[in-house]
Amino acid sequence: MRILAKEVFSAAKDKPQEIVELKGWVHRIRDMGGITFVVLRDRSGIVQLVFEEEPDLTLESVVSVKGTPALNEKAPGGAEIRVSSLECISRAAGDLPYQVNADPDKIGLEAILDNRGLSLRSPKLRAVFAVQATIIEAFAEYLRSQDFTEIKTSKLVGGGTEGGSELFEVSYFDRKVYLAQSPQFYKETMVASGMERVFEIAPAYRAEKHDTPRHLNEYISLDLEMGFIESEKDLIELEKGLLSHIFEKVSSKNSEELALWNASAPTREAVYHSPTVGYEEAIKIANEENAKEFAGKKGGARIFDITPEAERFLCAWALREHGSDLVFVNEFPRRYRPFYTYPLDTSRTMSFDALFRGLEITTGGRRQHDYEAFLAVLPKFGLKPEHFTNYLTLLKYGCPPHGGFAIGCERLTARILGLSNVKEASLFPRDRKRVEP
Amino acid sequence: MRILAKEVFSAAKDKPQEIVELKGWVHRIRDMGGITFVVLRDRSGIVQLVFEEEPDLTLESVVSVKGTPALNEKAPGGAEIRVSSLECISRAAGDLPYQVNADPDKIGLEAILDNRGLSLRSPKLRAVFAVQATIIEAFAEYLRSQDFTEIKTSKLVGGGTEGGSELFEVSYFDRKVYLAQSPQFYKETMVASGMERVFEIAPAYRAEKHDTPRHLNEYISLDLEMGFIESEKDLIELEKGLLSHIFEKVSSKNSEELALWNASAPTREAVYHSPTVGYEEAIKIANEENAKEFAGKKGGARIFDITPEAERFLCAWALREHGSDLVFVNEFPRRYRPFYTYPLDTSRTMSFDALFRGLEITTGGRRQHDYEAFLAVLPKFGLKPEHFTNYLTLLKYGCPPHGGFAIGCERLTARILGLSNVKEASLFPRDRKRVEP
Repeated sequence: MRILAKEVFSAAKDKPQEIVELKGWVHRIRDMGGITFVVLRDRSGIVQLVFEEEPDLTLESVVSVKGTPALNEKAPGGAEIRVSSLECISRAAGDLPYQVNADPDKIGLEAILDNRGLSLRSPKLRAVFAVQATIIEAFAEYLRSQDFTEIKTSKLVGGGTEGGSELFEVSYFDRKVYLAQSPQFYKETMVASGMERVFEIAPAYRAEKHDTPRHLNEYISLDLEMGFIESEKDLIELEKGLLSHIFEKVSSKNSEELALWNASAPTREAVYHSPTVGYEEAIKIANEENAKEFAGKKGGARIFDITPEAERFLCAWALREHGSDLVFVNEFPRRYRPFYTYPLDTSRTMSFDALFRGLEITTGGRRQHDYEAFLAVLPKFGLKPEHFTNYLTLLKYGCPPHGGFAIGCERLTARILGLSNVKEASLFPRDRKRVEP
Repeated sequence: MRILAKEVFSAAKDKPQEIVELKGWVHRIRDMGGITFVVLRDRSGIVQLVFEEEPDLTLESVVSVKGTPALNEKAPGGAEIRVSSLECISRAAGDLPYQVNADPDKIGLEAILDNRGLSLRSPKLRAVFAVQATIIEAFAEYLRSQDFTEIKTSKLVGGGTEGGSELFEVSYFDRKVYLAQSPQFYKETMVASGMERVFEIAPAYRAEKHDTPRHLNEYISLDLEMGFIESEKDLIELEKGLLSHIFEKVSSKNSEELALWNASAPTREAVYHSPTVGYEEAIKIANEENAKEFAGKKGGARIFDITPEAERFLCAWALREHGSDLVFVNEFPRRYRPFYTYPLDTSRTMSFDALFRGLEITTGGRRQHDYEAFLAVLPKFGLKPEHFTNYLTLLKYGCPPHGGFAIGCERLTARILGLSNVKEASLFPRDRKRVEP
């Protein structure tokens, strides 16, 4: 009967005489002269195997071993297996093009991504996706507890809801369609269908040409939308509860993965202490932080928008003044938000961003649900009603006040673990140059 | 404080004098002369509102009402609201193009799909997606309990793993890529990465031109893959446990939705009684059933493959002989399976289909994990090694025996509820003619 690496310590304690079987990958081989230590890697972790004769093995081969467990303080996990028999299930070729057992911090990102199938074998790099799986699980779990229903909507659309041009074109039989930038229209349709509260976990596409540490052309969007809200403040409260749940679940389920990255997730208390500042106030704070940082130095040009620099300054301020890794900026000027954003007054909107450890992870807001108001705003954005017939049907026949937001899954993963590039939090990232593997 | 429609009965019983607020859509208006009954619809169901004066309302308007709850045996749910004040939040235009409160069985599928934003307001049609949400939840929940990790992989790929031509082409900056037909290569990569057991819930794309009640060009694939299996029989056992869990969860969580469709999900016992028959045996059974059905009648040509007719015959046989809605067919001939399927002998493979209530819902099997054997099989399928460099890297450096399967989420939803067309189980279905809404 197979046991896992993580079970060896208790097997060694409880039944040291009993022969057990382990299966996994050869992570490391150390010939000590007479005795050979092999580190075996399986889905649960690593364990040391002790061979009295040198085994004929290559790194990354898949093996099955039988032996007796024994306590050993010096072995990783405090126990090892004294091997009595070995079967090589799949022998790895000797010309391994990527050093799986090396410290990934010492390998460049391009090499890691070029060899993705092998680099993901590194426990530290694979840990990123154990954390991501927990984020996805916790996102759905919390929203279900709040009476949200999960939906799956089409990613092939006639045009972009943003009316923008950053769309990937798909040849769909004899016509052209586009990869959806977001499920915006569909999630609003489902709110208005009477589901009221919906969420979707799905890929989203942006044909943006820039290649930065914060952008992916294909990413996992954690989307939600809900009816009968008053303003974006309801959404900010929801996101606080949601993020608290995600952080708590990651902390409890992924303590080992967090330790590999020397990372921790914020506490519930810290999330609820996070401040909400209006856009104008946010710009002011960012400039004050900017002035402090660059006092007496060159650089530090005046900040006029929530730029990546402003995001970093605002997060530094929130941490210092409120003890929180998170800050919400709301009441964005109309010109910075999509046309369907609900107005707060003539210049501002009921919208918000969430910034987490220096990076925007969420954009959201209340949407315009009034048919006449929606029609009236289109020409101000240079848009035509005939391009929004489905949207207009949605609003024309009874639509509650509603709003929602989306969390970029890779961004949240990256900021929890302190990854410097969001591509590290995508299993098979797509950017302008990369569509392989 | 808002209460939901489903909470009115207990409010009427416990606190009949207390004024409550309800919000929702005007589902039906019945003027009885002097008194008006309005059926209000919210995310939880419907409730009857009683107006002493005729309210100025249109069907599908979104309203907020205040009033006192009262028991009334004749009202749906056994209670009603005697309305003291009404606010119309979003007035629906009077030219409603689709009759939301009609019996959807009397409306054609094309009209239902053309008016998807409105037709989904029908409680019966929306119920399909409450069941689907439970299927997705239960799929993930069961697999997590079996130590599987959820993954999200790219849907933009350089080519099809099947080597086929049924791919949608995407203009990706200055090159062409394709929408993934399945996450096959990626889930195998993650098994070999050491995650060992992975699942993915994501869209999959098939550029098939045929338009049948069983096909979608974009569908939700419930995929899994696991390492260290012996044969497809391990996968069949896993699927029995998985489907049992899904069916039990749907039965307990969606009893009202099942009742709307006069449907029920199989019991765990029935699932575990479902037979597994080899391909040759399956063809024989199908022909015997065929002969019985067409005895003395025209039609009933001999069956040479697991055609849609054969699927129906096999399910009828399994129900009669084994009391099960489910039958597994395994050991498919090599010519019917992808090149990477693991051989059982020279002519047969370690592969299987699951048929449920007359429809194939799953295809799966063990995969070839041996580098040399994989290389050797390529020319037999007219394929070239240079098109499989990533796959070959995967196998060359240590890959355990593994296999997996995928469940078509819309097909499973449709067969649980008895829907005649799989498009009914897709929120916004895509077929050759339809890319809207």
